[in-house]
Amino acid sequence: MSSENTITLYETTGFPNPARIRAALAEKNALNQVAFIEVDVMNLEHRSEEFYAKNPTGTVPVLRTLEGEYLSESTAITEYIDALFDGPSLTGTTPIERGVIHMMQRRAESMVMDAVATYFHHATDGLGPALETYQCSEWGNYQKQRALAGFAYFNKLLENNLYVAANTFSMADITLFYGLAFAEFAGLQIPSELTHLIAWRETMSQRDCFSAN
Amino acid sequence: MSSENTITLYETTGFPNPARIRAALAEKNALNQVAFIEVDVMNLEHRSEEFYAKNPTGTVPVLRTLEGEYLSESTAITEYIDALFDGPSLTGTTPIERGVIHMMQRRAESMVMDAVATYFHHATDGLGPALETYQCSEWGNYQKQRALAGFAYFNKLLENNLYVAANTFSMADITLFYGLAFAEFAGLQIPSELTHLIAWRETMSQRDCFSAN
Repeated sequence: MSSENTITLYETTGFPNPARIRAALAEKNALNQVAFIEVDVMNLEHRSEEFYAKNPTGTVPVLRTLEGEYLSESTAITEYIDALFDGPSLTGTTPIERGVIHMMQRRAESMVMDAVATYFHHATDGLGPALETYQCSEWGNYQKQRALAGFAYFNKLLENNLYVAANTFSMADITLFYGLAFAEFAGLQIPSELTHLIAWRETMSQRDCFSAN
Repeated sequence: MSSENTITLYETTGFPNPARIRAALAEKNALNQVAFIEVDVMNLEHRSEEFYAKNPTGTVPVLRTLEGEYLSESTAITEYIDALFDGPSLTGTTPIERGVIHMMQRRAESMVMDAVATYFHHATDGLGPALETYQCSEWGNYQKQRALAGFAYFNKLLENNLYVAANTFSMADITLFYGLAFAEFAGLQIPSELTHLIAWRETMSQRDCFSAN
């Protein structure tokens, strides 16, 4: 493959948002159509001029498209992958599916993934003093409470649903799954009484896109 | 129209996120196919049990779909509208368009709309003491700086582009437009040296979906 015609994912091993893109690629059976480049976040590579040229917000993942454009933001990258590759839809095919999946994607982000991230980066040591150059611990602890409320919200939702959105596996399941993984890493346990959420996570963990990743 | 077959938008006049949905409907020439219900945020109607049943996050806008489901989150509502109605696409038709538009939509939200909202609700009087029951002024002022950086980012982007994403009018333009309107309302002026952003805003303000709204 010439470099112009290769899709490339800039990722950091073990980080939750790049893992969302790997899972999306796995669902589309497209992992073998993408090249992977490790970004050394712990050594500040994501804050280099070279990386900012790819993504001015300085976050992983970034995906270089077939056209040579750089995409960031996990939902945007997933939209690209979902539209480009065959296989089961991750973003919905009907208007109502698209609406509900995007709504639940945003809730899984704001109520869990992003809330946990803000707690981790602002109210704990996070990635350490070289990386956490500004912390607002009050806000971080507030977001911890929001994450716990998010767990309870999804627990109730999953009492009567196999999936987060539209009765089908979607990008919203991927986001919640890695949001919970991030929470565990950050020391935020799912309370044991949230049995539906815990059971959902256990079932999901056996799905190929997560277990083989 | 029977109520089951009517699309209904729950909105609050003058608020920026409901205005995004009106603009999307206007672009699709579909305003006359939707019923509008005012939510009295100033009297806490959005924090009533009845409203939480429609949207557990307690925010406007909410859209009741043809199927009778309640959608919240502006991007999700826009996806539904864009897929349902004919007319120019607001979310992109090719994989690369979908990716770039969703990326810029998220940047217009996080770097401008949401940053301004957090500044407004946390570092100013916001909607007043009855509504602003928790404020973290440090975080609000940090987000003010992020919003100003967002203005500069979009100013640079718009130096050589007529539109925010993919060389076409899209939901990302709508989000930035109302993000800047919110900033003005919150007392955050666009610095006069950001001439490209100011010129873009002036051009946009004459577009039917904004001027007739």
